[in-house]
Amino acid sequence: MQDCIFCKIARKEIPAQIIFEDEQILAFRDIDPKAPQHILLIPKEHIATINDLVTEQSHLVGRMTLTAAQLAKQLGFANQGYRLVMNCNEHGGQTVFHIHLHLLAGRHLLWPPG
Amino acid sequence: MQDCIFCKIARKEIPAQIIFEDEQILAFRDIDPKAPQHILLIPKEHIATINDLVTEQSHLVGRMTLTAAQLAKQLGFANQGYRLVMNCNEHGGQTVFHIHLHLLAGRHLLWPPG
Repeated sequence: MQDCIFCKIARKEIPAQIIFEDEQILAFRDIDPKAPQHILLIPKEHIATINDLVTEQSHLVGRMTLTAAQLAKQLGFANQGYRLVMNCNEHGGQTVFHIHLHLLAGRHLLWPPG
Repeated sequence: MQDCIFCKIARKEIPAQIIFEDEQILAFRDIDPKAPQHILLIPKEHIATINDLVTEQSHLVGRMTLTAAQLAKQLGFANQGYRLVMNCNEHGGQTVFHIHLHLLAGRHLLWPPG
């Protein structure tokens, strides 16, 4: 998608603090972190919202989650813990319409989750 | 797992307001809801934390997410939106050690997510 900010990050047209990349997934630091560790994981393929996810793409969410756990281990906060969040549309608070998984860690995340 | 409360729900040894079930996934209402709609999705297979997820199981998280989106459509709040949350260990606020995806909707979820 030409004007999608996360597609532009995936194409390296916009800089980001990228911490993981493979053929399908990109992980980079959130520019407005809400915890000491706040990383976003996206599929390189443009999918606007979770509502748009089709069965053939659902493995990407599995891979994003697995990658988040692997990053948590590499960065040393897996045992202490973390929270994974995906927002959909207005009530969820989605601001960029390219699906992304928030990985938050480094402090006790409170309940309710927003 | 003999003593896991979510395994017991999956085996129907403990009652729950089940709203979806197939061979791999179960969805039921949270007994302490934090939003007008608060549903938990679990794999029937016992996986203690996201850290324990292995590659061969990651498709289950994809299916849980896809099922959450399908439930959001069926229950009529997909367009308005929702939030998906998974907690891992103490900092994440994980209380039941059988992985589960929270689906919250029916109000504006705030930011930060806890």
